[in-house]
Amino acid sequence: MHMLIALAQINPTVGDIDGNCTKIFKSIEVARDKGADLVLFPELCVPGYPPRDLLHRKDFVQRNVNAIEHIAAACKGIIAVVGFASPNTESAGKELFNAAAICQDGKVLSVYRKRLLPTYDVFDESRYFAPGETNKSLNVTVSGKHVQIGITICEDLWNDEPFINRRLYGADPIADLAKQQVDLIVNISASPFSMGKQRQREELFSRQVAEHNIPLALVNQVGGNDDLIFDGASAYFDATGKCLVRGKSFAEDMQFVDTDRPATSPPLEIPEDIAAVHDALVLGTRDYVTKCGFSDVVIGLSGGIDSAVTAALAVEALGKEHVHGVAMPSRISSDHSVDDAQQLSTNFGIDHRVIPINRIHQAAEETLAKEFAGMRPGIAEENIQARARGAILMALSNKFGWLLLTTGNKSELAVGYCTLYGDMCGGLAVISDVPKMMVYALADYINEKAGTPLIPQNTIDKVPSAELRENQTDQDSLPPYDVLDAILQQYVEQDLDIADIVANGFDRELVVEIARKVDRNEYKRKQAATGLRVTSRAFGSGRRMPIAAKYTY
Amino acid sequence: MHMLIALAQINPTVGDIDGNCTKIFKSIEVARDKGADLVLFPELCVPGYPPRDLLHRKDFVQRNVNAIEHIAAACKGIIAVVGFASPNTESAGKELFNAAAICQDGKVLSVYRKRLLPTYDVFDESRYFAPGETNKSLNVTVSGKHVQIGITICEDLWNDEPFINRRLYGADPIADLAKQQVDLIVNISASPFSMGKQRQREELFSRQVAEHNIPLALVNQVGGNDDLIFDGASAYFDATGKCLVRGKSFAEDMQFVDTDRPATSPPLEIPEDIAAVHDALVLGTRDYVTKCGFSDVVIGLSGGIDSAVTAALAVEALGKEHVHGVAMPSRISSDHSVDDAQQLSTNFGIDHRVIPINRIHQAAEETLAKEFAGMRPGIAEENIQARARGAILMALSNKFGWLLLTTGNKSELAVGYCTLYGDMCGGLAVISDVPKMMVYALADYINEKAGTPLIPQNTIDKVPSAELRENQTDQDSLPPYDVLDAILQQYVEQDLDIADIVANGFDRELVVEIARKVDRNEYKRKQAATGLRVTSRAFGSGRRMPIAAKYTY
Repeated sequence: MHMLIALAQINPTVGDIDGNCTKIFKSIEVARDKGADLVLFPELCVPGYPPRDLLHRKDFVQRNVNAIEHIAAACKGIIAVVGFASPNTESAGKELFNAAAICQDGKVLSVYRKRLLPTYDVFDESRYFAPGETNKSLNVTVSGKHVQIGITICEDLWNDEPFINRRLYGADPIADLAKQQVDLIVNISASPFSMGKQRQREELFSRQVAEHNIPLALVNQVGGNDDLIFDGASAYFDATGKCLVRGKSFAEDMQFVDTDRPATSPPLEIPEDIAAVHDALVLGTRDYVTKCGFSDVVIGLSGGIDSAVTAALAVEALGKEHVHGVAMPSRISSDHSVDDAQQLSTNFGIDHRVIPINRIHQAAEETLAKEFAGMRPGIAEENIQARARGAILMALSNKFGWLLLTTGNKSELAVGYCTLYGDMCGGLAVISDVPKMMVYALADYINEKAGTPLIPQNTIDKVPSAELRENQTDQDSLPPYDVLDAILQQYVEQDLDIADIVANGFDRELVVEIARKVDRNEYKRKQAATGLRVTSRAFGSGRRMPIAAKYTY
Repeated sequence: MHMLIALAQINPTVGDIDGNCTKIFKSIEVARDKGADLVLFPELCVPGYPPRDLLHRKDFVQRNVNAIEHIAAACKGIIAVVGFASPNTESAGKELFNAAAICQDGKVLSVYRKRLLPTYDVFDESRYFAPGETNKSLNVTVSGKHVQIGITICEDLWNDEPFINRRLYGADPIADLAKQQVDLIVNISASPFSMGKQRQREELFSRQVAEHNIPLALVNQVGGNDDLIFDGASAYFDATGKCLVRGKSFAEDMQFVDTDRPATSPPLEIPEDIAAVHDALVLGTRDYVTKCGFSDVVIGLSGGIDSAVTAALAVEALGKEHVHGVAMPSRISSDHSVDDAQQLSTNFGIDHRVIPINRIHQAAEETLAKEFAGMRPGIAEENIQARARGAILMALSNKFGWLLLTTGNKSELAVGYCTLYGDMCGGLAVISDVPKMMVYALADYINEKAGTPLIPQNTIDKVPSAELRENQTDQDSLPPYDVLDAILQQYVEQDLDIADIVANGFDRELVVEIARKVDRNEYKRKQAATGLRVTSRAFGSGRRMPIAAKYTY
């Protein structure tokens, strides 16, 4: 077999069939110009992944079908494999297939239908799609030789540990293709990022490939679509399971694979974990903001580490001229909170405003004085300050058309250490899936990469505080963050039982208290902004918990 | 066949295995005391429906399995059919079955596994469950006679129009049971309410029963669990498809069916549509508030119809002493808004407070004066008022432990005619699935039922206005509500294409404008409070749309 394969790692926008097709047409042209025999596009790249309930709109599905005809017409002298939603007109089950159109010489040669449909975590594919029942392999003549290509879509290839219990699906498309003695397996994917997944994923692919002794060419979608960030890192593995070519992580790319001599230089590296999280958040922020039609963002700067890291990520995503920082001191705020915020803005060169909340704070206290007469100050009074800040930021957002980025981290969102309609205000929660200890690691990474403390060292070193009452620190209400994060990781990400977490060396009373806080604050997260997912289990579409529920330990 | 069957229509709380079992034990006792041979409980009544991702917790599943052993032990002299989540230890697929335990004489005789798993609309069953592969019929000896009973769970019976395209499932459990010549079909359900569904559902059941000439005993869960309201209305149909016994709608109940002479009196009626919506909202509000552990609610009263209807429903749900009304006039508010709110509170006998927002409003304007200098007032200024009100209500909520009910209707939520973190504040959106025209119908119904204008006639008659700027009315920004609601019903509930809606007699430009508004405001609804579902498609778990998406018409 000798082929030149192009891995067209594009960043589609969900719903934007015309825009996505423009990217596809351009990529076909580039691939053909370079002499590619075959160009691969990601799963469902015509509608963008995940299209969700747009798939219930008849006109949307029809336009996505029409698009495939246009794409096929553009495939002169090259074969393209393109993901789209294909109507199910014949078999039992849902009305669509998650499909790959194989286009050549102006025609759709064949349509493959994804067999394994993920319906867990963030995936809802059984909501929309019927499973395909048969493999599809394609006999292609390249340079006078016949090549048998087996087509697969994402999950078809994932049928193994650590992601999938082999018992989950009663089918194994890769093994079936191996029995058909294909020369090459192609996989088109839309596989979202989480920390560590790039490496795990390639280990799995490598194992699958080596087991069956068939090379694999895989293209993965790139880009942020709401909470999900797709990392790209498309790849080619030879029949021994060695990765010879790899696409960029977190950026559009087109890699070419010459199957006769694929490894002329070492493949691009997969980034280290913290760099990957950083790059994922930058991409996720940029795409959410721009795909929503915004250019600028506004961020409340407290002088603390969460807002500092959020601002740094936003600057990287959008450019410093598009980021607006607002410090909103109260009579309780420390001097360093204002100074550190100012220093941060200066370091990053962003617009900086200081808007004290004292007037609103005092007016709210006076307004409620009669109602609250004789009662001790508490959470209600603290939240008033957070909500005054939320209202100021939203007023700026409304007035100037800036998207408000909210700055809460995963640890505080987990236990409800945040104010609904206060610091939770915003269109996008940039670091709401980043545990507090990882926020520190990100700050260090950002400063190291810059070679200078862009995030002021004092912001990193000081004791965390919400500054909603005098001398408050986070640890008045919470255990040390390393302990909290370890418990949360086991309870939220791994779904471990209380007993198992205790067996891992944590105090039972503390574990129960944390678990209860997590459960009790489901109502806050119900109303949280979309948050970028970077762990294996974010608060979002991958975690669906009841609110008015009662589960005791 | 001669049997006495008890339909134990209970209201479980999701996650509360102990509390749900207490209800089950009591019902078994009552049924046995009345001489019942068979007592039926709803689908997944041990964990409560829908348990969602609680099913991913091992200890939760184990406790639900243990509960079945205890229930079986209590089944002396009676057979109970009880819904629970049963581990899948043998076959391919998900790790659980949605199952019915058939318990008798201290033992679990048999376990039936639901075959048809709804994975559409609000249902995610393929996320958790493997489909059962075989029917289960049970040979029971009652008064010396053998009776063959076919067990089914909810969707197993729904395999027909108007709910299901017959092609969706490749199986038909009822037809299979008919082939096995069972004497009786039992169905345990957790079927949520929407307007008109009770009648449609019974038409379907009646048709299925008559087609196969087998009587049907069905029990349906009752109660509100987050957005979903289960209406009960358990029923018995004779072999001709006639409904002879029917349980209460929207309340716990236990009906008894003597299969030899089931119809000693006419069955309870199904309520008319508007009465059903009213009763559903009352139940949904009561259950959300109390299952969340609250007793009291607070409501912002604008003098308008939405807050008036919400207050009326809350009084019915919780009692007048548990409802706190707050009028929050601004310098823009009309006199009638304050007077009508006061009149409403007087009529319903609820706590009434007047807390003007002027101070906060002015403080916010002063705080932002420099930033906004030279700019014309607009949405930003309007929203400041709504957010001041939201902050006041949340302060009362935090201080006194009252759950805040938000009062927006479906029409305004659809087109984004509402303020995020302003009037959208609240833990439960009571009427967010009620279109504006239906809000009027509810007001009329409430007043008719009371025989007196509890909701002031002026509130019903006046021109709707958000009163966020001078002389504002809703129709400055929106088409007349009857037109708006008709378009929204087709676009949101029926998922009709623009062309189809236009073909139904609406102006294309208007339809496109409304559709765009719906699409563009997905971000607001992402952060909306849980809303009670009363139509076939609410904004909530049954409608999953992307946010950072671009779909043009």
